Amino acid sequence: MSTSADSFARIAPQLEGQAIELPSWAFGNSGTRFKVFGSPGTARTVEEKVADAATVHRFTGLAPSVALHIPWDLVDDFGALRRHAEDLGVSLGTINSNTFQDDDYKLGALTHTDPKIRQKAIDHHFECLDVMDATGSRDLKIWLAEGSNYPGQADLRGRQDRLAESLATIYDRVGPEQRLVLEYKFFEPAFYHTDVPDWGTSYAQVSALGERAVVCLDTGHHAPGTNIEFVVMQLLRLGKLGSFDFNSRFYADDDLIVGAADPFQLFRILFEVIRGGGYGPANPDGTSEVAFMLDQCHNIEQKIPGQIRSVLNVQEMTARALLVDRDALLAAQEAGDVLGAHEVFMDAFSTDVRADLAAWRESRGLPAHPMRAYAGSGHQAELETTRVGGTQMSWT
Amino acid sequence: MSTSADSFARIAPQLEGQAIELPSWAFGNSGTRFKVFGSPGTARTVEEKVADAATVHRFTGLAPSVALHIPWDLVDDFGALRRHAEDLGVSLGTINSNTFQDDDYKLGALTHTDPKIRQKAIDHHFECLDVMDATGSRDLKIWLAEGSNYPGQADLRGRQDRLAESLATIYDRVGPEQRLVLEYKFFEPAFYHTDVPDWGTSYAQVSALGERAVVCLDTGHHAPGTNIEFVVMQLLRLGKLGSFDFNSRFYADDDLIVGAADPFQLFRILFEVIRGGGYGPANPDGTSEVAFMLDQCHNIEQKIPGQIRSVLNVQEMTARALLVDRDALLAAQEAGDVLGAHEVFMDAFSTDVRADLAAWRESRGLPAHPMRAYAGSGHQAELETTRVGGTQMSWT
Amino acid sequence: MSTSADSFARIAPQLEGQAIELPSWAFGNSGTRFKVFGSPGTARTVEEKVADAATVHRFTGLAPSVALHIPWDLVDDFGALRRHAEDLGVSLGTINSNTFQDDDYKLGALTHTDPKIRQKAIDHHFECLDVMDATGSRDLKIWLAEGSNYPGQADLRGRQDRLAESLATIYDRVGPEQRLVLEYKFFEPAFYHTDVPDWGTSYAQVSALGERAVVCLDTGHHAPGTNIEFVVMQLLRLGKLGSFDFNSRFYADDDLIVGAADPFQLFRILFEVIRGGGYGPANPDGTSEVAFMLDQCHNIEQKIPGQIRSVLNVQEMTARALLVDRDALLAAQEAGDVLGAHEVFMDAFSTDVRADLAAWRESRGLPAHPMRAYAGSGHQAELETTRVGGTQMSWT
Amino acid sequence: MSTSADSFARIAPQLEGQAIELPSWAFGNSGTRFKVFGSPGTARTVEEKVADAATVHRFTGLAPSVALHIPWDLVDDFGALRRHAEDLGVSLGTINSNTFQDDDYKLGALTHTDPKIRQKAIDHHFECLDVMDATGSRDLKIWLAEGSNYPGQADLRGRQDRLAESLATIYDRVGPEQRLVLEYKFFEPAFYHTDVPDWGTSYAQVSALGERAVVCLDTGHHAPGTNIEFVVMQLLRLGKLGSFDFNSRFYADDDLIVGAADPFQLFRILFEVIRGGGYGPANPDGTSEVAFMLDQCHNIEQKIPGQIRSVLNVQEMTARALLVDRDALLAAQEAGDVLGAHEVFMDAFSTDVRADLAAWRESRGLPAHPMRAYAGSGHQAELETTRVGGTQMSWT
Repeated sequence: MSTSADSFARIAPQLEGQAIELPSWAFGNSGTRFKVFGSPGTARTVEEKVADAATVHRFTGLAPSVALHIPWDLVDDFGALRRHAEDLGVSLGTINSNTFQDDDYKLGALTHTDPKIRQKAIDHHFECLDVMDATGSRDLKIWLAEGSNYPGQADLRGRQDRLAESLATIYDRVGPEQRLVLEYKFFEPAFYHTDVPDWGTSYAQVSALGERAVVCLDTGHHAPGTNIEFVVMQLLRLGKLGSFDFNSRFYADDDLIVGAADPFQLFRILFEVIRGGGYGPANPDGTSEVAFMLDQCHNIEQKIPGQIRSVLNVQEMTARALLVDRDALLAAQEAGDVLGAHEVFMDAFSTDVRADLAAWRESRGLPAHPMRAYAGSGHQAELETTRVGGTQMSWT
Repeated sequence: MSTSADSFARIAPQLEGQAIELPSWAFGNSGTRFKVFGSPGTARTVEEKVADAATVHRFTGLAPSVALHIPWDLVDDFGALRRHAEDLGVSLGTINSNTFQDDDYKLGALTHTDPKIRQKAIDHHFECLDVMDATGSRDLKIWLAEGSNYPGQADLRGRQDRLAESLATIYDRVGPEQRLVLEYKFFEPAFYHTDVPDWGTSYAQVSALGERAVVCLDTGHHAPGTNIEFVVMQLLRLGKLGSFDFNSRFYADDDLIVGAADPFQLFRILFEVIRGGGYGPANPDGTSEVAFMLDQCHNIEQKIPGQIRSVLNVQEMTARALLVDRDALLAAQEAGDVLGAHEVFMDAFSTDVRADLAAWRESRGLPAHPMRAYAGSGHQAELETTRVGGTQMSWT
Repeated sequence: MSTSADSFARIAPQLEGQAIELPSWAFGNSGTRFKVFGSPGTARTVEEKVADAATVHRFTGLAPSVALHIPWDLVDDFGALRRHAEDLGVSLGTINSNTFQDDDYKLGALTHTDPKIRQKAIDHHFECLDVMDATGSRDLKIWLAEGSNYPGQADLRGRQDRLAESLATIYDRVGPEQRLVLEYKFFEPAFYHTDVPDWGTSYAQVSALGERAVVCLDTGHHAPGTNIEFVVMQLLRLGKLGSFDFNSRFYADDDLIVGAADPFQLFRILFEVIRGGGYGPANPDGTSEVAFMLDQCHNIEQKIPGQIRSVLNVQEMTARALLVDRDALLAAQEAGDVLGAHEVFMDAFSTDVRADLAAWRESRGLPAHPMRAYAGSGHQAELETTRVGGTQMSWT
Repeated sequence: MSTSADSFARIAPQLEGQAIELPSWAFGNSGTRFKVFGSPGTARTVEEKVADAATVHRFTGLAPSVALHIPWDLVDDFGALRRHAEDLGVSLGTINSNTFQDDDYKLGALTHTDPKIRQKAIDHHFECLDVMDATGSRDLKIWLAEGSNYPGQADLRGRQDRLAESLATIYDRVGPEQRLVLEYKFFEPAFYHTDVPDWGTSYAQVSALGERAVVCLDTGHHAPGTNIEFVVMQLLRLGKLGSFDFNSRFYADDDLIVGAADPFQLFRILFEVIRGGGYGPANPDGTSEVAFMLDQCHNIEQKIPGQIRSVLNVQEMTARALLVDRDALLAAQEAGDVLGAHEVFMDAFSTDVRADLAAWRESRGLPAHPMRAYAGSGHQAELETTRVGGTQMSWT
């Protein structure tokens, strides 16, 4: 009924390669429209954000890369930043574009009625592709914060057509080893319509582009009640699931620590990833087709422990999902045994894998309990002492 | 600011061809899982349901066809039923299949793990296609009530693959003048996962079939907060909007009278239909590419007046949507005039078109006020007197 | 980090008195508005439903009483039914009234504009009180299925005033050892307004009645996203939480097995019950102030195992909730340690208590694994063999 | 069927006293957590915000007072500010406290575990009461932005008890002509629990305080699908509806222009206000028991026209709601005529009152079309020219 040493030993090898990309912006301040609270020790430079990400990796072994956001993370010399990261044991990952903080983009960017503003937004993506060449990043992630607030304000159809055209222009420059990843979001910052509000729209748009255009699924970007694991299944089936932005929520895009609001949902999502072949290295270079990333806001909690907690939650639910006895599950499903199949599934979810994971971490030279190890390391106090002066990074 | 005689005269011709298909089952009893209330005068046979639909058409001029549901509306001689309908001035329209009321389908039909049950469900659709040949119907509408109630109960991916296979088998038999229309629904009767829960899934499935496979959008089948007019726009843009099932709701799939819960939403939907070229006859034979249908439950209100109210609501909001000054709207949109564009849009919505519509109806030999005309006609009392004995039709 | 023998031993005594009332109607057929599937072995009489409830108790030790629904469970001799129950080792519990299945109640019962219909509904509650006198039941539970479907259809305020008057009339007859329990529900079967849609309304109504009027919280009767444990906390604080109707849902009032959709939510609810003093016997006669009941629909799964699964889920999450180290939690909360407090809370939730529970059950002469024990008992096959002929009970 | 001159003449007198309070912060910049866009001509001082509010009143005759927010609107001399307002033809209204933007309040204010922080928050409210004495304001409005983000982070019950204590301390200082108005909100900025999340909690808290403590209903602060007009009805019935914060939304607390997202909902709300006796002056001094206020964010649209549009929308829907033929409505309701009652209700909603309102405005010396009049006045251009330099006001 619970994890035997045997069953954990069976799945442990599959945990080895797990890699969860951290967002640089998780190490800067974030908040709500009402207030961004600062906290002592918060990173003041891109380099410090990368260092914080490397700290998370050092304590967990789970976070070997860090995503950047342009222009928040613009530096003069990306080669130097790359070496800085590598020196700290991590690499630079996904490049995220930003078309929502320039005054010109108030009413749209890639969808704007004004061709000059569209071109400006396209140029920004070209700049991101240049950064990717310097950082060696594979993925250009586009979250389209565009939409309208009032019925009639915008021509929904015209915007969609312009979006297709803008994306095609960007896609033309995406290199053969690179991907364009299009994120969708239900609402916010636009409150009437959003130009890419759902997976269907993202899927339709990337399908029109080509093979190296894929979808990013942010777990907080759905309508209430959406069965997210179904979307995961469908996108994997259609060959278009490019990456995850993990976080959790009770209400809207709350951007809480992944697994905090509904651990069972995270388990179900990870089960479908595994079931659909989206887990584990698929490429010769060891990269997975489906990138696991975090996208969260540590509004009130400490940022480094917040990220450690997050990657541990993903690891723990991955372990539970790997424990599902899939043969028994399939047999019960095919027998029409509703409660039996459900029980096989829940058996894995109900299993407490923490002790096994702790022992396994130690066997790999990692702290058994990363949260405690970090708390006991004095690192946070050191940051709070040394990071004085300067301006804390923030994404708002 | 309000409708001038001129502006109504401009749009009146576009109202002329408007046709809204009525569902035969709206004339039988319906209800909730808690109770189906009967009401005096309710139809007891398919023929009586067709007669009731014809009554709605007689009072409104808006409802020239009636959709059938198999097996609820199975008759021995569909040729005779067709003549019965034509004698009453209406035609037989969309054929709806039913794979949710046979004990074999408890855990699935087109997606079932058992190939014999899948074949049975496929055969049912072949039977529906035979009916269509007899009735001259264009559309085979498939609402897939399949899914699961408990996590782990079913293999989401396996079901999706089997669905694709089953649909392909059915599609092979769809005639060159016929269409397969696949409806999606967020939830109910399944409460954990539904096999076609969203427009994206329906779109992906019908795209894999071919040109004559399209999507049905039921206005009550979305997650809370979904921007339905956006979906309308997108499906029209992708060439895959086949038909509407109109109704309205405050909560879930409430199946209330269309336009009753949120008239402004209905207006916005109809505006996007018009904007996207989905309104009006597109085919040589006068049929539209996008079929307007009702799918509602008159649980507590009278059925014939309920349907009259419904088609009038669609007509009224169509008129308002046609009144939008699209040149002014586009100009304001392109100027980035948020409040100005919104106001152009709202001007049309705020316009009271009822008097103009009443006069226009009279000019065409129809009652100016169909609801009052029906109430004053004595027809309802006659039905209640004559339809005694027998069993009232019901879809539960 | 996980359950030590010690920690389980500490909480085991608190598990001993746990009692979860079963609804008689869970043993009859149920379904959706689309279809009620029958299943072999389903109870055909009230007596068989009580016997099935007793079977659940025999395998789990958790379900010593069964709630009745009038008129579904009307019998001529409730004294005999009571003895039948007691012979089987269970007692008769809460009496549920029903004002939603009589044709007179189509537009309202306790809120109806017609005083004769209101009186009929009041009389029905008097009849229920008579039944309670015969069965020895403490609680009269009123779920008010009343409301309206269309804006304007009903006078919201007039209905609320009439409701207050009707309830006062009923409350006058509630005995000194009895309680009136008023349930609220967000929507369904009414789809525009419901007369008791939220805890606030139920609270306001029962507060106006008196001390022996309390609120029933059905876990499936809230708006999407509602923080249910907050409502539990508040009602306990206000001294008005009378009982739970446990079930779970992904969408609306899905009535799935409690704990199936979101086990973490069930854990949080039970934690607040314990925190707020609502767990455990509070009265001299051993009854608790807060009654735990199930209210579920086993539409597709077997009913007896469905109920066994349900009470086990409640027991398991109660055990986890009892394991929360409340001193450590409070200390972290007061220190403002967001992640620390959350971790103390999650430690308990992450603990796998199944092995301990199994051993503890055996020590009390119960099957270690009630689901397996029932499956292996041959009881289901026996029911399917012997319960042939007659009409299966159903609540629709 | 539509407004006759007669019917408008009947309701016009009731429109005369209508007063909608404007929030000073609507004239500063606002936005989302992603970006606050500035716009030319935005007020840079409290005095300029008051002037902008006065401009709205000058063009509409609907907005004779302006609400202040402390500390955003703190000035040294509130007597001078009051005279400034009165010179411009408006008065100072509700005082809003703010306990969400000080670093000390990161984890709570009136509910904080630390008594020193609670006292600080209480003292802030005392300061607000002092301001009220200077401004002559009646209402102290408390929006409690407090809550927690992670399960276990906070003790829900302890916070509720501390809240009750803090409110009681504040209420003790509320003068005999003043009121304490407690707002509730479903979520944001807290994402797991909010300390006053629903009307029930606000009602329970203010009921414990006394007669001069009432509830504020912000139309954007409810769970999806909530029937807001029901809450309006219930709070009026319980004598506890103190004020409205009007705005509209499609998703969460979008804070769009009132009436923009769902005009029919605004109509229904206003109908219940009228039905429940909450409309019109109830006090000898001409003030209403229920205060109408706006609380909106003009993120992308111009602020002064945004506010003009808003008060016009309220006025227009008030006029339609006043047009409901309540005798006919009641008769149809009592006859159980579902469609008939609905139609009486919809007749009023479908009526285009704009031409009548325009003529009536002119008869009172106001611009017939305030939006056009403002656009044509050159006022906006003047502001954009003269308000150069300084820092635009903003609430983030």
